[in-house]
Amino acid sequence: MINTRGSERKTDRLEAFSDAVLAIAITLPLVDLKAPGMNPTTSLATQYAALGPAYLSYGASFIVIGVYWAYSHFSGKLWRKTDHGFNLLTLLFLGAVSVTPFPSRPFIEHVGDPVNIRTAASVYAWMLSAPAVLWTVRWFYGVHRGLLDPHLDPRFIRGTGLKYAATAMACIVGASIATAGDWRLGIAIVGLVTCVYLLPPMTPRYRAGEEPADDTQEADERPASGG
Amino acid sequence: MINTRGSERKTDRLEAFSDAVLAIAITLPLVDLKAPGMNPTTSLATQYAALGPAYLSYGASFIVIGVYWAYSHFSGKLWRKTDHGFNLLTLLFLGAVSVTPFPSRPFIEHVGDPVNIRTAASVYAWMLSAPAVLWTVRWFYGVHRGLLDPHLDPRFIRGTGLKYAATAMACIVGASIATAGDWRLGIAIVGLVTCVYLLPPMTPRYRAGEEPADDTQEADERPASGG
Amino acid sequence: MINTRGSERKTDRLEAFSDAVLAIAITLPLVDLKAPGMNPTTSLATQYAALGPAYLSYGASFIVIGVYWAYSHFSGKLWRKTDHGFNLLTLLFLGAVSVTPFPSRPFIEHVGDPVNIRTAASVYAWMLSAPAVLWTVRWFYGVHRGLLDPHLDPRFIRGTGLKYAATAMACIVGASIATAGDWRLGIAIVGLVTCVYLLPPMTPRYRAGEEPADDTQEADERPASGG
Amino acid sequence: MINTRGSERKTDRLEAFSDAVLAIAITLPLVDLKAPGMNPTTSLATQYAALGPAYLSYGASFIVIGVYWAYSHFSGKLWRKTDHGFNLLTLLFLGAVSVTPFPSRPFIEHVGDPVNIRTAASVYAWMLSAPAVLWTVRWFYGVHRGLLDPHLDPRFIRGTGLKYAATAMACIVGASIATAGDWRLGIAIVGLVTCVYLLPPMTPRYRAGEEPADDTQEADERPASGG
Repeated sequence: MINTRGSERKTDRLEAFSDAVLAIAITLPLVDLKAPGMNPTTSLATQYAALGPAYLSYGASFIVIGVYWAYSHFSGKLWRKTDHGFNLLTLLFLGAVSVTPFPSRPFIEHVGDPVNIRTAASVYAWMLSAPAVLWTVRWFYGVHRGLLDPHLDPRFIRGTGLKYAATAMACIVGASIATAGDWRLGIAIVGLVTCVYLLPPMTPRYRAGEEPADDTQEADERPASGG
Repeated sequence: MINTRGSERKTDRLEAFSDAVLAIAITLPLVDLKAPGMNPTTSLATQYAALGPAYLSYGASFIVIGVYWAYSHFSGKLWRKTDHGFNLLTLLFLGAVSVTPFPSRPFIEHVGDPVNIRTAASVYAWMLSAPAVLWTVRWFYGVHRGLLDPHLDPRFIRGTGLKYAATAMACIVGASIATAGDWRLGIAIVGLVTCVYLLPPMTPRYRAGEEPADDTQEADERPASGG
Repeated sequence: MINTRGSERKTDRLEAFSDAVLAIAITLPLVDLKAPGMNPTTSLATQYAALGPAYLSYGASFIVIGVYWAYSHFSGKLWRKTDHGFNLLTLLFLGAVSVTPFPSRPFIEHVGDPVNIRTAASVYAWMLSAPAVLWTVRWFYGVHRGLLDPHLDPRFIRGTGLKYAATAMACIVGASIATAGDWRLGIAIVGLVTCVYLLPPMTPRYRAGEEPADDTQEADERPASGG
Repeated sequence: MINTRGSERKTDRLEAFSDAVLAIAITLPLVDLKAPGMNPTTSLATQYAALGPAYLSYGASFIVIGVYWAYSHFSGKLWRKTDHGFNLLTLLFLGAVSVTPFPSRPFIEHVGDPVNIRTAASVYAWMLSAPAVLWTVRWFYGVHRGLLDPHLDPRFIRGTGLKYAATAMACIVGASIATAGDWRLGIAIVGLVTCVYLLPPMTPRYRAGEEPADDTQEADERPASGG
């Protein structure tokens, strides 16, 4: 087994880098929102209306990346440290999140086009599934390497892992159905999973007698053992 | 009521993420500022002059986003913690701020065009109103959830809430007038509200005996109760 | 006089926001560097060579913004706190820095074009002068409002202010010469001033007995008075 | 020798700025990934397939910048402070990393084009070598200026310097071979060096009795001398 102990650090810089990448990924689709130019033949209202799909696509991408940010914000409370492998898995996850806005406009534009809608829907569904899978892989890697707050209740850790694994699985099933079965059902499954994450995450439970001293104390702010 | 206690954290990471999104939103309009290319038929001076509306639009957007950043910088002093719902409302607010540069160039370009100016002005006014409304909603949500510094004087909290609510209301009135009445008056109201925010925010008042120890101590740096 | 006491905070978030804006401003010109596409009529080497001015322009912009970042990094050591006015002046400064890459490619492309070179040179020189002037204005505002580390030696503060004022003045003289006299001389002056800032900043001097405890202690990490 | 003592600071802000630049550099190539538009003559599947080289190029750039981020994350653990010269070298390094995505798509597109492949390969190989060389120069500058954690074992410092110097040398050899010899061999060498960095960095060794108190304690969090 590769030794990654030497690359362990507190999570603050990893959190800052993730925040920066997600902040860019969530705003970059704005570059595609071209404001109408001077056009003597079409009214401005018509031009704005024609931007509908681009707006919808921006909104959908914003929700997806926003939800991942909110969960990554929450999970920063649980991780005590990071190592080289966790960094690389985080990079993969961030890369996968960053490209999710890409296939959303084609999907919206082709909703009424029977020839291409299956392609559009399956590309979109698979690209939405990739970050969910990588998020889950990263979770289990970090648990296995002992990077979590050691004060967390093992049952909470197991429950959270189960939830992430179920989510990733549901996304894969949804994407498979979008590719090989009914694209509407497939997209609905993937979309529903995303919406579930708009709900707040489970409250962390700690081992008896090892609760944080204060409601804002974080895992990397207290010693690894003892209260 | 949905339980969001488990997602509570100090505000530092939320502030960092907001800063990053606003930093990107304020610089991204630069992508639209295309420097003149080599053009044998027009003088460089003429080409630079033709960029006037684009420059004005960049400047206007810079002021709007800058004012929101300055207030969000200030309000970071008041919030003690954040939760999942506050994160999602912050995301909505950031998304709404990020698209404000979008309709400003069309508005500037159509000022002398009687056919389209009402469309241009009302789209601009409504898109400027959205972040003001979301900022206010977020304020009341955070107050309701107990996320503010508990040492703040209740009268200061009420006064600030009133100010934000009045601002949001004024924007909605301005945008309605821009749509259904005189667009000049509507835009003037929304613009005036923005300019009011160039003035410094109200000095926070604390409960008697609970003032911060030092002029730079922050809400998330001291215990929730006691001095 | 407008009361800005209520908006005072430590400088960490202002520094983080400035860093983010400068990081974006320094990388955004990359969007203009279009890699050559597939072109059957021209060799790839010729296409790469044609990108010369774009590369030079990226390099020049990188140096200008990089120097401002390095000085803003250094000056973060001196400021103890910030207020609303300091925030707004910082925003103006950042806005002015962010647009400096814009007129650099036109300037490089028109070096051999006697008709337009004066326009290209004076736009470039003025846009390079703007951040130098705003940097200086911000310095004096902050000094006047008592935002600096109170332990600094007044002679160091006066010396630094003098240096910044001289720099801003030299830029204005250079830009004026580029507009009304010899553009080569004007650009040389402005360029030379920029290069002077590649040298390290003056070592801060402190009041006798008030030196920092440690070589990495910062102004906002120790009490306002006493050692 | 130029005195840079006055510009020394802890590394946190330099780390934050580097993180921001690398976060932008790693996401900016997304701007080139244009999602397919409405096209009545070509199927969406064909359009997605045509984006293959753009995707591959995005993936390759992501790995290169990601590896540099992971090493820069790790090395932040070792540096205790920074100075003006270290800041400028970091800027040069960041500028060199930021342009590495640029020549990757031309390289991928020209793999089967015997006329231009040597140009494409050598531009790519040299631009991948530049950050490796600058990273190494920065390392030796920082060691020479005493910016490293003074508790590190001198043998660890020498070993790390040797590894970086060997890497830079291997890149230069690879790029030279890509230019003057077999481009496949040259690119293979440079690519292999990059892949080696996917492995975790060497575990830091400290002087006897000067190990960090805790597995997440950092160089800039403890006094310069003593345990």
